[in-house]
Order: sequence, then structure tokens, then C-alpha cells
Amino acid sequence: MPTVHLPANSPTPTIGVFDSGFGGLTVLRALIERIPQARYAFLGDTARLPYGSKSRRTIARYAVESARFLVQEQGAQLLVIACNTASALALDAIQDAVPVPVLGVIEPGAHAAKAASERGDVLVIATDATVRSHAYATACQALGLRALEKACPLLVPLVEEGWTTHPVTTQVIDVYLSELRAQAREAGLVPDTLVLGCTHYPLLRPLIEQAVTAGVRVIDSAESTAQMALEQFGSQFAPAAPDHQPELHFYATDSIEKFERLGSRFLGRPVGRVHLLDLGG
Amino acid sequence: MPTVHLPANSPTPTIGVFDSGFGGLTVLRALIERIPQARYAFLGDTARLPYGSKSRRTIARYAVESARFLVQEQGAQLLVIACNTASALALDAIQDAVPVPVLGVIEPGAHAAKAASERGDVLVIATDATVRSHAYATACQALGLRALEKACPLLVPLVEEGWTTHPVTTQVIDVYLSELRAQAREAGLVPDTLVLGCTHYPLLRPLIEQAVTAGVRVIDSAESTAQMALEQFGSQFAPAAPDHQPELHFYATDSIEKFERLGSRFLGRPVGRVHLLDLGG
Repeated sequence: MPTVHLPANSPTPTIGVFDSGFGGLTVLRALIERIPQARYAFLGDTARLPYGSKSRRTIARYAVESARFLVQEQGAQLLVIACNTASALALDAIQDAVPVPVLGVIEPGAHAAKAASERGDVLVIATDATVRSHAYATACQALGLRALEKACPLLVPLVEEGWTTHPVTTQVIDVYLSELRAQAREAGLVPDTLVLGCTHYPLLRPLIEQAVTAGVRVIDSAESTAQMALEQFGSQFAPAAPDHQPELHFYATDSIEKFERLGSRFLGRPVGRVHLLDLGG
Repeated sequence: MPTVHLPANSPTPTIGVFDSGFGGLTVLRALIERIPQARYAFLGDTARLPYGSKSRRTIARYAVESARFLVQEQGAQLLVIACNTASALALDAIQDAVPVPVLGVIEPGAHAAKAASERGDVLVIATDATVRSHAYATACQALGLRALEKACPLLVPLVEEGWTTHPVTTQVIDVYLSELRAQAREAGLVPDTLVLGCTHYPLLRPLIEQAVTAGVRVIDSAESTAQMALEQFGSQFAPAAPDHQPELHFYATDSIEKFERLGSRFLGRPVGRVHLLDLGG
């Protein structure tokens, strides 16, 4: 990956992280592990979530407004779109709208699948809108992989209900993966890799790893995205002191209370104060 | 109930029906059965659904914009808020914003519970926002009932996934109703009535009726609301001809295709063409 130079207008460069909700906190968590010395501004567009069931036009309008806030108001010098749906449907629109590098989660997920898969046959589970966009299939095909995608609309509400170890969730995952395996057989694919194409799904990773066929590797695009950010931009940051605490700022367009309550599950640490933001939509 | 007079500025009065999505089509279906001779304009604010997880302030802003469209652009002389969340959190704001009678689903649901319950102990299942508002508990208490409410956030996605007869849905309903029964016991209630406080839930009525304790009556607030509309406004309409076909107009702020595809399940007849509407949010 080429190194991209961030504008040198701040002693501590800011990475803006955007999601439709707070699932993208799994991406922020992976970023903090790799680039702890950055200043982070995270925006969850919770007033208008979920993006996963909406049209490309609407998703692009919402995502561009959010990206502009992070760049213009928060001074982000790098933008990470920690939302599969927005990455799938609005990455071009965001790149056109802001003058800083923009990294989505789809391309890193596809690269990680390429690295993991021996046979080149890959499964992707994601939201309805991400699947309908075929963004993962397109990115995988560009790398020489064959990819089969499936929408799993119940998994996000199950995670948000906190049923991450519930027997019902195990059954729902079994239903979805059985259907996907049947489709793979019909298509003549023998998959050895499964991409988690939604930022909520890492919280179901233990159940999903139990449910996949033996030998299938599970790829978390949150991890892959953070790794790509480190490779492309990591050299721009001074090394962190041993006792360094990451500087985190949280914004949401609605449901502050829910964000604060549920966000820590995704971030793996307390979220603290979330600021309410009105994007006017 | 008092009879309310509609303005006589149209030979066929228009009833505007509003929902955050298309669950409110269960209310429209019940209205058409009782007042087939009205002209209906239905608006689903699908670009901004679900309302059930958002704050009162955001819900009120969205609902008022939608109500104004139905009254100002569609000439609605009566407005039915076919959305429990908007009825619970924004009925006052809508009534202040438009000059026509506005009927929500909460009060009719509470009246139907009062008529059905012998002991006066009532259970209500609804979305998170409806439950947090305690609108049903307040409306029930005003009628001398004791009401216990429970949020069931997985039921809407299960209906939208089409799993209305799936064993997983049966288990989810059992989990929610078991928790609710335990809470009722703790509170010293002996409920004989369960109110379906969300317009998606009538599609799960067969499973819910199997899951409730023997003798518990299930109340559908869609039916109750249509019945109240008939009682209050029915005399304003000329009798329908025997071969009358209802005049239906559908608008949505996004996801026209999904509305057209899934809407017929809720309406019980094909939805036909849905017009895309931009409310700017």
C-alpha cells in the first residue's frame, strides 16, 4: 500500500471515524489499538440509522453531511468510513465532498479475504443495502476472488438487543449460513473464507465461528480497515508514550443515552460523554 | 365518542394516514374495511424509520413534517397517526401543527383494552420508544386500568424479514412474554388482556395468541383505531356503492421498491404504485 501524507497542520493529527450508528466503534477500537497516538472524532448518525435498509441517494446525502462535519468542524485529516453500507454506497460521494483521504471498510475487507483464502472462494454476510450494492463482490472480483454475498437483516437487531450469546441468535446464524452454503453449492463455490461485512457482526464472532464449516476462516473488516489505516498513515504519527491515553471525542445525531449505554460493548471500554449534534435531517 | 365534523370542502373527504414505515398499512387496511368510501393518502416516512429507537424531539420533527404534507399537499381532512411511536411521542405536536382532527393509535388501544379486560390488569408490547414514553400506561391508567409495558425490539425486524411463522419468531415471542409475565407477577398483576402496541405486530397475531396464557385476550390497536375513526367520523361519508373500489394513494420518503414489495403483506391487497417524496431530512 502506498503511504499517503496527511496535511501537517496539527501536532496531533485527527482521524475522523463515521458510522450510521455505533457499530463502527468496533473499527475505532481496532484503530486505537494500532494508532493510539491519534486524536479521534467519532460521529454516529443515530437519528437516521439504519442506513442498511435505505437507498443509495439517501445514504449518500446523509454520509456526506456527516463527513463534512468531521472534516470542517473537527479538523479530521483522515476519514475512516466505519460503516459498510456507507462505504458500499457513498464512498465516491464522500471522496468528492471532502479534501482529505477517505478509507472505507470494503476494500480492506476484500484485501484481507484475498490474503486469507487459498481457493479464492469467499462468502460475505452484510446488511441488505450493502449486499444489494454488490460492493464486496466487485472488490473481491477485482482481486481475482469469487464472492457470494448474503443479507442477514436480523443480526444487527439481535446485537442491539444484547443477545450476543443467546440460543435464538445461534439459530438465526445457522439459518442464514445454511442458506448461504446451499447457494454456494448451487454456484459451484467451495468457500474457505467468510467476511463479516457489517460493523455489528464482530460482536457475534464467537457464535459465527462455531457455525461455519470447519476450516473456514472468519475475516473481520474492522480489523482489516484499521490495519490498512496503520500501513498507509501510521508513519505520520509520533510514537506514543507508554502511558498514553487516546484522545476520544464522540458525537451522535440522536439517542445519546443509547449510544452511551450500548457503545462500550462495541468499543471495549467506557464511551464516556457523547455530544448531541444536529445535522438538520 | 362525540361526532367530529370534517370540513365540507370535498365531495369525497380524504383521510390522511401516516406511519414511519409501512406497518401502518395494517391500520389503513382496518380503515378501508370500515370506511371504504373515503379517499386515502398514506405516507410512510421510510427514509427516517425506524422511529422506535429515536428521541421525542427527533420523532416530533419528522412526524410534523409528514403530517403537514398530508394536510397541505393532499388535502387530508382527518389525520390518522398509524404509528404507535409517533402517537406516543408526537400527537400533541402534530395536533398543534395542523388544523384538522388527529387520531392516534394509543387512546383507541387503551379504550379497547378497557372494554376487553374484566380484572383491569393489562399488558402492552411495543417498540422501545413507545414503552419509554409510557403513553399506553398513562392512557390505561386514565381509564382505571393497571398496565405493564414491555419493549420487544426484535419483533419488527422479524416481521420485515418475513419470518411471521418461523420457529425462531415463536421462541422470541416466548422469551419476551415469559419476561413480561414474570414482571407482572412481581408487580402483583393478573393480566387478562394483551395490547399489540405496534402496527407490525398484527402480522404475528397467530403466534402471539398461541403464546399467551389461556384466557388472555389479544387487542390489536389497528382495529381499535379504525373502529374509533368510524364512530367519530363515519357519518360524514355517503354510503359506498356495492362495487366501490377504495381510492388509495401511497407516498414514501425512500425504499419505494421495498414498500411495494412488502406492503401488500400488511395491507392484505396489492399496494400498487408508491410515489417517492422528498421531505428534505
